[in-house]
Amino acid sequence: MHRRDFAALAGAATVSGLPGWLSATAQQPVRVNGERLNRHLAELAAHGRSPTGTNRAAYTDADLSGREYVTGLLREAGLDVRMDTAANIFGRREGSQRGLPAILLGSHIDSVPDGGNYDGDVGSLGAIEVARTLGERRISTRHPIEVVIFQNEEGGTIGSKLMAAGLTEAELDGVARSGKTIREGTRLLGGDPARLSEARRSPGDYLCYFELHIEQGGILDEAGIKIGVVEGIVGIRWYEVTIRGFANHAGTTPMDRRKDAMLAAARLTVAVNEITRAIPGRQVATVGRITALPGTVNVIPGQVVLTIDLRDMSVATMTLATGRFHDAARRIEAETGTSITFRDLSTNEPAPTDPRLRRVITESARALGLSSREMPSGAGHDAQEVARIAPIAMIFVPSVRGISHSPEELSRPEDITNGANVLLQSVLAVDRTGLGR
Amino acid sequence: MHRRDFAALAGAATVSGLPGWLSATAQQPVRVNGERLNRHLAELAAHGRSPTGTNRAAYTDADLSGREYVTGLLREAGLDVRMDTAANIFGRREGSQRGLPAILLGSHIDSVPDGGNYDGDVGSLGAIEVARTLGERRISTRHPIEVVIFQNEEGGTIGSKLMAAGLTEAELDGVARSGKTIREGTRLLGGDPARLSEARRSPGDYLCYFELHIEQGGILDEAGIKIGVVEGIVGIRWYEVTIRGFANHAGTTPMDRRKDAMLAAARLTVAVNEITRAIPGRQVATVGRITALPGTVNVIPGQVVLTIDLRDMSVATMTLATGRFHDAARRIEAETGTSITFRDLSTNEPAPTDPRLRRVITESARALGLSSREMPSGAGHDAQEVARIAPIAMIFVPSVRGISHSPEELSRPEDITNGANVLLQSVLAVDRTGLGR
Repeated sequence: MHRRDFAALAGAATVSGLPGWLSATAQQPVRVNGERLNRHLAELAAHGRSPTGTNRAAYTDADLSGREYVTGLLREAGLDVRMDTAANIFGRREGSQRGLPAILLGSHIDSVPDGGNYDGDVGSLGAIEVARTLGERRISTRHPIEVVIFQNEEGGTIGSKLMAAGLTEAELDGVARSGKTIREGTRLLGGDPARLSEARRSPGDYLCYFELHIEQGGILDEAGIKIGVVEGIVGIRWYEVTIRGFANHAGTTPMDRRKDAMLAAARLTVAVNEITRAIPGRQVATVGRITALPGTVNVIPGQVVLTIDLRDMSVATMTLATGRFHDAARRIEAETGTSITFRDLSTNEPAPTDPRLRRVITESARALGLSSREMPSGAGHDAQEVARIAPIAMIFVPSVRGISHSPEELSRPEDITNGANVLLQSVLAVDRTGLGR
Repeated sequence: MHRRDFAALAGAATVSGLPGWLSATAQQPVRVNGERLNRHLAELAAHGRSPTGTNRAAYTDADLSGREYVTGLLREAGLDVRMDTAANIFGRREGSQRGLPAILLGSHIDSVPDGGNYDGDVGSLGAIEVARTLGERRISTRHPIEVVIFQNEEGGTIGSKLMAAGLTEAELDGVARSGKTIREGTRLLGGDPARLSEARRSPGDYLCYFELHIEQGGILDEAGIKIGVVEGIVGIRWYEVTIRGFANHAGTTPMDRRKDAMLAAARLTVAVNEITRAIPGRQVATVGRITALPGTVNVIPGQVVLTIDLRDMSVATMTLATGRFHDAARRIEAETGTSITFRDLSTNEPAPTDPRLRRVITESARALGLSSREMPSGAGHDAQEVARIAPIAMIFVPSVRGISHSPEELSRPEDITNGANVLLQSVLAVDRTGLGR
C-alpha cells in the first residue's frame, strides 16, 4: 500500500457518526467482509446446483429462488429494495447531498446452462457487500448508491438493455433458454411487460456504473496479476459464411476436377486464424460452427456453412480484418472453384469504459497493494448496455485457468475479496471527487 | 474399325444354323439393337420415378416392380430365369460344349435415393440385350451365358457379396435404406434367408464376369473417349478422425492461448488434400463429414470429428498417404495444442480386373472403331465382390459431366449402345479363346 495514494483517495470521504472506515486502523482503507461475501457466494450456488453444473438460466425456478435469496441480502444490507417493470432488482442507499445522481453498481445472477458459480454472482454479491460495508461502517456518501441485479444477462443482456435502450416487440417475443419468451419471463420474475418504458433510464440519471466481474479469460491468472482494469467491452461481428462447391462422388472425381466446399472452408478457417494473428493487437476470431452437406463419408461436400466470431475494441481493426477475410475468400474461390458469400449475423459496437474511472480503479488497486493491468473484455456484459446512458467501468478478478461458462469456473476467495475491496475504494473515490467535471 | 482385329476377334466364333452375326454384313461385327436397349432403359426408369429423382432403393415397392420388369425382359430374351436364395435374378443360355463354366455378365437395378437412371441399369439391361442378340442371331457359344441382376448393390453390394462371400448374421440384421433389414428385404424380394449358403458360388464356377457400367466420373466425357477399360475397383480406406482441443470463450481467450479443435481440423483437411495431390498417381482423398462441438458461434470448438475417404488401386500408395496423414496430424497437434486420433471405419481392398480380359475389351472396342483407355473405377461395384470367385472385367461408358447418384445422371444413348456392343464382342471373344489357359 502506498500511504500517499491512500490518503489522496480516502482522505476526503465524509464519515457520519463514528468515523467508520477510519476507526479500526487509521492507516488502512476500509475493507469489505470477505469471509461473508464468499459465504454468500456459496449460499447462492445452492440455487440451481445440478450434477452437471449450475443451472440458473433466466426465468427458471432456480432463477426465481436465487433472486429471492439476493433480495434478502439486499434487505440485510439495509437497502431500500424495489423491482423495476423490467424485473431488474435494485437496492438503494441515499446520499448526503441532495440532487446528485446515484452511483450504480451490480451485475447479474442468471447462469448459462451447466455453468459455474462466479460469472455475474461475484459482481452482484460484491456490490451488495460494498453497500453493506458502507452501512456497517456508517460511511456516508454524497451520492446515492444503487445496487442493481440485472435480469437475464446470459440471454442477451436483457435487463440492462431494457433499462438503457429498450427492446423491440419482436425481441420481446424471442424465446429464452427456459423456453419462455422474454415477455413471459419478465412477467414471471415480477416485471410488467406492458409498462417497460417506466424502467428506461436516461443519460444523467446515474453518475456512473461499476461492474465487478470474473475475467473469464486466463490473462490475469497466468500473469499473476490481481486486478484487471477493463478498457472496454469489445465489439463483436458475427458472420455466417456459405461456401458453395459441387457435391460429387468421392471415388470417381479426380483431385483436380473437384469443387470441394470442405477444402475451401478449411482454407478459409486457416486464413481467418492467420489473418487475425498477423494484425498487431489483441483482436480474436473464431470459427465455432460448421455444417457440411450432404455430410456423408463418400461424397465431396457441395456446401459448407460456417460462422466467424470477430472481436476487438477497435472498429477499424475489425473492418481491416473483415476486409482481409473477404480477400482470402476471393483467392480461395479461385483456387477451389467454389463461391463464398458472407452474411452479417450480428453486430455489437465496442463499449469503451470511462478513462477517468479506469484511473480511479488503478489507483484504488494500488492503494490496496494489488497489482493491476488494463485489458479489454472479450465477453459481453451488462455494462456495455449501461454505457448508453452512463460512464461505465469494470473491475476484473482472475479466473483460474481462464475457464468460464463451465462447472470448472473458479475464482479464488481472496481474489474475489480483493475485487470487492477495489470496488468499494473506487466507489468512495468517485463519490468524493466526481468524474472531474 | 480395323478389319484385321475384327477378323482375329470374331473369326472363330461358332455359328449355328444361319451364320447369325455374319449373315447381314460379313465385314461387320454383330451388334446389339441399341434402339431397343435404350427403350428398355426408359421403361425401367418409370419404376421409382419421383419429382426429386429415381427412387428405387432395394426392398421398396419400386425395387420389386423394377425386378418384375427386368424378369420379363430376361424371359423375352429367351433365357431360363431363376432366382437364387439370395434374391439375385439369373437368366441362362446354355453353351454348345458340355462342362464348360458359364460366362457371367450383369449388374444391378436398385438405385440410391434421388438417383438417376443409368447407374446399374445400363449394365443390367446391356447384359440382357447382349443375350437377346445372341439368341436372335442364333449365335451359339461354347460356354453357357448367364445374365445376373444382383440385389441391393447401393446398400453395400449385398447380392454379390451373398454369392461370392456371404454375410455375417450381424450384417444380415443391418438396416437398409428402405428401413428393412437385409434379411427381411431378401425375403421380400423372394429369397430365402435361411438357405443363403445355397446361393454361394466358388472359384471355377464361372469362367469370368463382365460388368458394363457408367463411369460415374467425368474422365471419358471430358477426353471424348468412348470406352473405359477398367483396371480395377479401387481399395477404400475410411478413417474417422477425432481432434480434441479445449472448448473456451471466443471472446476472452487470446489467439495464442487456444487449443482450437476447429483450426486443427482445418489444417488437417488442407494437409490431406495437399498430401494426396503430391503423391504421383490417381489416388483421391475426401473429407466428407465434419462435426464440431459445442458448435456455437461464440465458443472455440473443443472437439471436432471428421472423416477421410481414401481410394486407390495401390495398397502401397494408400499406406504411404495414410502415413503422411498421421505425420501431418502429429505436426498439427504440436502447433495447435490438440490431440488427434484416427480410427478405422472401413477397409476395402482393391479388386484388380483380369489383364487378359482388359486386352479383350480393348481389342473389341478397337474392332468397333471406338476409342478406349484404361482407368480405375473409383466407385465400388458388384464386380469387386465377384472378384473373389472369378476373373472380372468392367466396361465403362461416359457419364455426361461426370455426374452420378443424382437425377442429373446421364449417359448418351449412342454411348450406351457402344458399351453393349463392346460387351457383346468381348463375350464372344472370350467364349472362343477362353482366358489363354
